[in-house]
Amino acid sequence: MKLNIIKLGGRVLDDSSEMNAVVKSVVSMNTPVILIHGGGAQATDLANQLGVETQMKEGRRITSASMMKIVTMVYAGYLNKNLVARLQASGCNALGLTGADANIIRAVKRPVKEIDYGFAGDITGIDILRLHEWIQSGITPVFAAITHDQQGNLLNTNADTIAAFMASAMSQLYQVSLYMLFDKPGILEDPNDTGSVISCMNRETYRHLKTEGIVSGGILPKLENCFKVLESGVTTVHLGDTRMLASLETLHTRLTL
Amino acid sequence: MKLNIIKLGGRVLDDSSEMNAVVKSVVSMNTPVILIHGGGAQATDLANQLGVETQMKEGRRITSASMMKIVTMVYAGYLNKNLVARLQASGCNALGLTGADANIIRAVKRPVKEIDYGFAGDITGIDILRLHEWIQSGITPVFAAITHDQQGNLLNTNADTIAAFMASAMSQLYQVSLYMLFDKPGILEDPNDTGSVISCMNRETYRHLKTEGIVSGGILPKLENCFKVLESGVTTVHLGDTRMLASLETLHTRLTL
Repeated sequence: MKLNIIKLGGRVLDDSSEMNAVVKSVVSMNTPVILIHGGGAQATDLANQLGVETQMKEGRRITSASMMKIVTMVYAGYLNKNLVARLQASGCNALGLTGADANIIRAVKRPVKEIDYGFAGDITGIDILRLHEWIQSGITPVFAAITHDQQGNLLNTNADTIAAFMASAMSQLYQVSLYMLFDKPGILEDPNDTGSVISCMNRETYRHLKTEGIVSGGILPKLENCFKVLESGVTTVHLGDTRMLASLETLHTRLTL
Repeated sequence: MKLNIIKLGGRVLDDSSEMNAVVKSVVSMNTPVILIHGGGAQATDLANQLGVETQMKEGRRITSASMMKIVTMVYAGYLNKNLVARLQASGCNALGLTGADANIIRAVKRPVKEIDYGFAGDITGIDILRLHEWIQSGITPVFAAITHDQQGNLLNTNADTIAAFMASAMSQLYQVSLYMLFDKPGILEDPNDTGSVISCMNRETYRHLKTEGIVSGGILPKLENCFKVLESGVTTVHLGDTRMLASLETLHTRLTL
């Protein structure tokens, strides 16, 4: 059995034509789908409107109690439910979720070491049997990037991390393809040339590109994550923009071990 | 098979001890439960903070597009997911939902007559079989008072109305008891005396109390709704505050035909 796990950037949900493209692609897939989305930019916008300070540390959000409230409103409320309604309108039986719902994604509050990340959650487990049951009954789970600690606290968890963890976990039951959507058509050899997509990358080419400084910055942890996912048994990992979802013939970056 | 449908006022969700009382009662019930909540006061607070005007007409909210966004954030995001996390922490397998999720509550945008209510939804149908399947698998559905039109639009629907509609619909499969929680211990003979709870009210006593002006205002449509629910086959309807949930021995108003 095949399963497509698709991670959307929050930006896609803000752009009506991008959102339509995603919905159209999901509906036309002959394979069951799990969607995962964030919404960091929209949360930051609302925080600014409400005068709540956005704290970042090494590219990661520090989640205060007031920021957690905002994240919950934006991810689990506004973005998630509008995406669900749009999918439903196209005949896809979407079900919007956080990790707290039906206790599907269990996490712990990240322990405080050098940095206190606040209400940030590190995943400890996923209920793959419940997801399997829902997928088999025709449901498309749509996750906002929020987990819980089973003590009553909601936690902010990176959407890439949830997607990677879920892909690994679901590969016990399915042949999983993971699609990581971002704002570029793939990993670029020249960041200024969207035509310079690296169509295939394995551990060796990755090391080479990293040493040469061709890939750097925020994409590195994303790629490391993706290679781990492949090692855990996920069939394929694809990085690119929404056009990749419409057709895998579209130029994008495919990772292999 | 028995089923308890409980409508919470949003105020309960704002008060930590009230919320604990509800969670404790739900967990200790030997009967499956469906929860429905609103959150009008919290939505109005956020609207004020964001400078969005709250328009009311005859006690009902006019839902502009920006108010619908706020309602979605507050009901389906903040209040719903925090309640779910609290229930999960007490061992109740809660699943937070809007009507759009799994297409469970279908509605139409209220037709414009004298008043344009904006994004207000009138319920057209409920997927009782899906709810039945979930309840049988140990899930406690928790609904935020939001529906959808199957065209991609989320709609604001009164929580009392959802509770009443759901109670009627589920009475095809279950012996349903409907609990309408509000901020009083029951219907009062003297609005200034919380000890003057009318413990039993039927159509006849209701007409009498209405004629005498003892019950009046916003409670009238609530009561009319509840009598209709009883006529549709719901077993019992109870009105009171959170203490009623802990024990039906607590003085409250029970409606009969």
